[in-house]
Amino acid sequence: MAERRIGSTIIENVQPSVDGGRHPVKRIAGEDVRVCADIFKEGHDELVAVIRWRQVTPLRARTDWAEAPMVHTGNDTFEGSFPVHLNGRYVFTVEAWPDLFATWTKELARKVEAGREVGSELLEGAALLEDAAARAHAAKADGDRARLEAAAARLREGPSPGVLALALDDSLRATASRHPDRSLGTRYDRELEVFADRVKARTSAWYELFPRSTANDGRTHGTFQTAERWLPYVQRLGFDVLYLPPIHPIGRTARKGKNNALIAGPDDVGSPWAIGAKEGGHKAVHPQLGTLEDFRHFVDAARAHGIEVALDLAFQCSPDHPWITEHPEWFQHRPDGTIKTAENPPKRYEDIVNFDWLGPARSSLWEALLDVVLHWVAQGVRIFRVDNPHTKPLPFWEWLIRRVQDEHPDVIFLAEAFTRPKVMKALAKRGFSQSYTYFTWRNFKRELEEYLTELTQGPAAEYMRGNLWPNTPDILPEVLQHGGPPAFKLRAALAATLSSSWGIYAGYEHCENVPLRPGSEEYLDSEKYQLKQRDPDDPQSLGPYLSALNRFRRENPALKLYRDLRFFESDNDRVLCYGKATPDGANLVLCAVSLDPFEPEEATLTLPLSAWRIAADEVFEVHELFTDTRALWQGPRAHVRLTPEQPAALWRVTRFRTSEQSFDYFY
Amino acid sequence: MAERRIGSTIIENVQPSVDGGRHPVKRIAGEDVRVCADIFKEGHDELVAVIRWRQVTPLRARTDWAEAPMVHTGNDTFEGSFPVHLNGRYVFTVEAWPDLFATWTKELARKVEAGREVGSELLEGAALLEDAAARAHAAKADGDRARLEAAAARLREGPSPGVLALALDDSLRATASRHPDRSLGTRYDRELEVFADRVKARTSAWYELFPRSTANDGRTHGTFQTAERWLPYVQRLGFDVLYLPPIHPIGRTARKGKNNALIAGPDDVGSPWAIGAKEGGHKAVHPQLGTLEDFRHFVDAARAHGIEVALDLAFQCSPDHPWITEHPEWFQHRPDGTIKTAENPPKRYEDIVNFDWLGPARSSLWEALLDVVLHWVAQGVRIFRVDNPHTKPLPFWEWLIRRVQDEHPDVIFLAEAFTRPKVMKALAKRGFSQSYTYFTWRNFKRELEEYLTELTQGPAAEYMRGNLWPNTPDILPEVLQHGGPPAFKLRAALAATLSSSWGIYAGYEHCENVPLRPGSEEYLDSEKYQLKQRDPDDPQSLGPYLSALNRFRRENPALKLYRDLRFFESDNDRVLCYGKATPDGANLVLCAVSLDPFEPEEATLTLPLSAWRIAADEVFEVHELFTDTRALWQGPRAHVRLTPEQPAALWRVTRFRTSEQSFDYFY
Repeated sequence: MAERRIGSTIIENVQPSVDGGRHPVKRIAGEDVRVCADIFKEGHDELVAVIRWRQVTPLRARTDWAEAPMVHTGNDTFEGSFPVHLNGRYVFTVEAWPDLFATWTKELARKVEAGREVGSELLEGAALLEDAAARAHAAKADGDRARLEAAAARLREGPSPGVLALALDDSLRATASRHPDRSLGTRYDRELEVFADRVKARTSAWYELFPRSTANDGRTHGTFQTAERWLPYVQRLGFDVLYLPPIHPIGRTARKGKNNALIAGPDDVGSPWAIGAKEGGHKAVHPQLGTLEDFRHFVDAARAHGIEVALDLAFQCSPDHPWITEHPEWFQHRPDGTIKTAENPPKRYEDIVNFDWLGPARSSLWEALLDVVLHWVAQGVRIFRVDNPHTKPLPFWEWLIRRVQDEHPDVIFLAEAFTRPKVMKALAKRGFSQSYTYFTWRNFKRELEEYLTELTQGPAAEYMRGNLWPNTPDILPEVLQHGGPPAFKLRAALAATLSSSWGIYAGYEHCENVPLRPGSEEYLDSEKYQLKQRDPDDPQSLGPYLSALNRFRRENPALKLYRDLRFFESDNDRVLCYGKATPDGANLVLCAVSLDPFEPEEATLTLPLSAWRIAADEVFEVHELFTDTRALWQGPRAHVRLTPEQPAALWRVTRFRTSEQSFDYFY
Repeated sequence: MAERRIGSTIIENVQPSVDGGRHPVKRIAGEDVRVCADIFKEGHDELVAVIRWRQVTPLRARTDWAEAPMVHTGNDTFEGSFPVHLNGRYVFTVEAWPDLFATWTKELARKVEAGREVGSELLEGAALLEDAAARAHAAKADGDRARLEAAAARLREGPSPGVLALALDDSLRATASRHPDRSLGTRYDRELEVFADRVKARTSAWYELFPRSTANDGRTHGTFQTAERWLPYVQRLGFDVLYLPPIHPIGRTARKGKNNALIAGPDDVGSPWAIGAKEGGHKAVHPQLGTLEDFRHFVDAARAHGIEVALDLAFQCSPDHPWITEHPEWFQHRPDGTIKTAENPPKRYEDIVNFDWLGPARSSLWEALLDVVLHWVAQGVRIFRVDNPHTKPLPFWEWLIRRVQDEHPDVIFLAEAFTRPKVMKALAKRGFSQSYTYFTWRNFKRELEEYLTELTQGPAAEYMRGNLWPNTPDILPEVLQHGGPPAFKLRAALAATLSSSWGIYAGYEHCENVPLRPGSEEYLDSEKYQLKQRDPDDPQSLGPYLSALNRFRRENPALKLYRDLRFFESDNDRVLCYGKATPDGANLVLCAVSLDPFEPEEATLTLPLSAWRIAADEVFEVHELFTDTRALWQGPRAHVRLTPEQPAALWRVTRFRTSEQSFDYFY
């Protein structure tokens, strides 16, 4: 048996990973991915470890395998990092091997120090160098080869001060280490995935607008042209994503009337989510909004205002959708031959038909839906808000998002899944870039602290990014119904600063807060079923407040990050205190937000001075952003008074003595 | 494309598992293994989940796949259990599918309640029942088939009170559920392993004895026959595992003298770990101890005293080992042709030669070492204490233990690895049944609480079982050197009650505590290099104390468990308070141990009454085991006074009102 020698290095617990590598970790292009692993073997060998990584998609950006060094940071943990500088999908794994010559020199040094005779050891070292030289030859690194061979020859001369000095020479060891016997190495048995999104997948401010309301007289159907007139307004508010509910032809059969009436009047516009009519389906534009060319013009105009247009992906059909006759095999039929409409008994959505997602015709259905996405990508859309993804199969989303992002890694998907926690996480694991959250219903200190800590610090932070919405067309939460403008302010301040992504549905700035009926979260005269009129010049508008929040976000890099949120102590349960900081500590924002829209609240805050690397006796400057006032603070206590009119305070903290150390606390 | 319909159920986070299924979880034969998993799919289908499991080794006990039900316990978690009643290796996985008929009945009930017309629905239900009937036929469950077909026919009659009652009948639903369309199911993509050990792998009390000392005059070499005379003594102390250091011929070349002297005198007996001489190697018995037959007689005699003999596996050779000439390919040679002795520079162990574990001849070497184990298994040995496993390759241990246990699942391996934490855990993951721990050096409250919580409650508790040793022949810890008999008592009390397995090295009961030199943990006149004499009738012996501890362990099932340890509050940092309880709460032991061998200590303990299901105003009985005194207590506070003479108190707590609920707190 002429078997080769084998290695026995163990590699365990390679991080970051999601479900042992079943799903990709999410990062942002331009970042370095920190990797750590437990690496060890029997005995006392010196181990060398590397990250092996490559970009795999998009194909045009695919790279060869590269290696990045890892260093031993104690307790058998090795750490390193690799760059994900381009948007796309990456894979990585870890490889480690014993450094035979370095191990030999370590032991030799101890023996020499103990005065041992090392003649035999030098012959061992010479053999190791000769082996390394042979490998250097193979790699055509001839300078190394000559050096290793010469050193081996000297070691064979036997012990002398000069020979021992050469044997223990650091640069000789480094040269030998460059030509290791990797056949003794171990490679981690999985390749882990990282998806590097563009920045907007993490940092975005959304404004939801029904373009059909933009004629703004409450009667005339708006168009993409009238919608363009709102772009300067949205830009002034500081939002950078403009999300449009579905823009497709709307079914007439079983169309819903105002306030979700079962029978629509002849002029009722219907729900944009009842997609498809004789004019077309998911790839068509509602004729009253304009043409596909008008839409492209709108997208370009928005971009000129620093705004990206996001479309809605609502994968369902009105009974008038052309696919229903063209592709009956994509739908479920009842035994009486009629098509099955959507239902959640006893409710029945007769204006909506669901696909037969898992039936025999699923392959062509899934391809057609992929084609819908690619169609809009071709029109310049790169952000999609996905309607109710939790009512469609998870394997479909995994397939769809992968197919889209393999070619277009810049496409962002926001999951509108208000459902059970594990299903929301499962959708994020399968590729959604952002997720709606329960923030909409979290109002009190303990629940906000717990939930945002889970979102931003828990295991889910590796793959899920919460986008915080104080309202949506479907949800007018109770706090807004009862709290008046102070509630709208404080909820906006929380959403805009707790997460790097937030959004509002138009009308928020006007404090629209009348429910369909007491106890309902539906809006009265909901825009889902009728046109709306709003006054962009409303003197009571919270526009300036929202504009300020978005400006603070643009000007403070810490607010653009997601995982840097930390909660601090406040002695008043109605005052939430937290902070965010960039890894280098250069930008550091302290926030205090009153959760009470009714009364003024005061609180003493306890600042994490040691985490901020501020000494207990050090004076530091704070700049309150809303009031544009500055102060010098000292020590860990700060007092704040918040009022219904000014429910939030944001301080930019400036340290005078800056430290070179990175803010590990925050990462 | 005539594709079949597919399923979309997701199964995640199946527990218990170690490293995502890379290593087996450890349990005890006779237990039920609780399994949980996150299981969900899009929409609102009723899901059914089962555990699929089978025993795989030993081959003679291999079973077919069986299924055990899981139930939804909320938040998309499903739980169930399966029995591991026989010693051996098991695999399990999880399978889940939508219950189409149960989902249909749930929706039908809501529609009927809402007064909807359900004629079309009944036709759907009939089709589902006909499908189920077809599957029932295939399974030859003909009673079910007829019932399902008849019910389908009735449903086709259309709505009537009688038909609706039948459609919603629980037993019809149950019948249909017995014949699901499993092709729509999902199976978890891994099979997870469980190794079910016999009880002694978890619960054992070890006594380490050098049989060569049993002639007990300090001069005459003991034999297995003289060792037999000590069995009643060990039995009286209450130990049930008698561990013998290596019993093989000892090398003469470079033999160590008394106190580890480099040169041995002519009468020096040498270290038993220097295995192998002209009389034989790892399969031979040291001639001065007797014959293989004498050894078998000793094993049988021990068994008659309720004691199992454990042998030492020290996989290394003296320079005189027969293998060195018979199998030079199993060893590493130096460039000068001599064989490499063990070393840890600057130390050199010239009486020990290591194997070339990973070299070209490893296959035959590994098989030979397996053969050594099987040889001693054939002599009736089922427990091995493995010497320094962390200096041998981890893949070897995984291979060896699996090979042995696949055939002999009752064999227990104790890892003597005092090394870095991740390496100790890695050895346990790869099959060691028990592990030595850092307990030997953990003396203070905080460190004991943290370490024992990690061992018994952390992720490692799924695969690692700590065996607590207050001393070994290699380690006389400082606390024993300075603390006198009180230290020996308190350390024994801690070891015997904190874990379900503990052990001492002979002489502990005599409080032997003289180190080789100040600052050393080596014993003076260590038994590793010379014969020892001890007085079994020593009136100062702690024998009665140890005997009592082992009796308390035998009489209290809670002390036999490992993962049931919980720490409770004591207001004195020198008094450790903890408890153990059986899952049914029937046996409940409270422990308070003084960590101070010098002075009396008092403490107020806070008892976890609600976890014990004792009401705040309830009177309960405590029986202190050392003093055999009883008292009635009430409320959560208890005062204890401990002294150097009586450093530990153990109370058996008896509730008068017993609850039916299981003690989930403890598991």
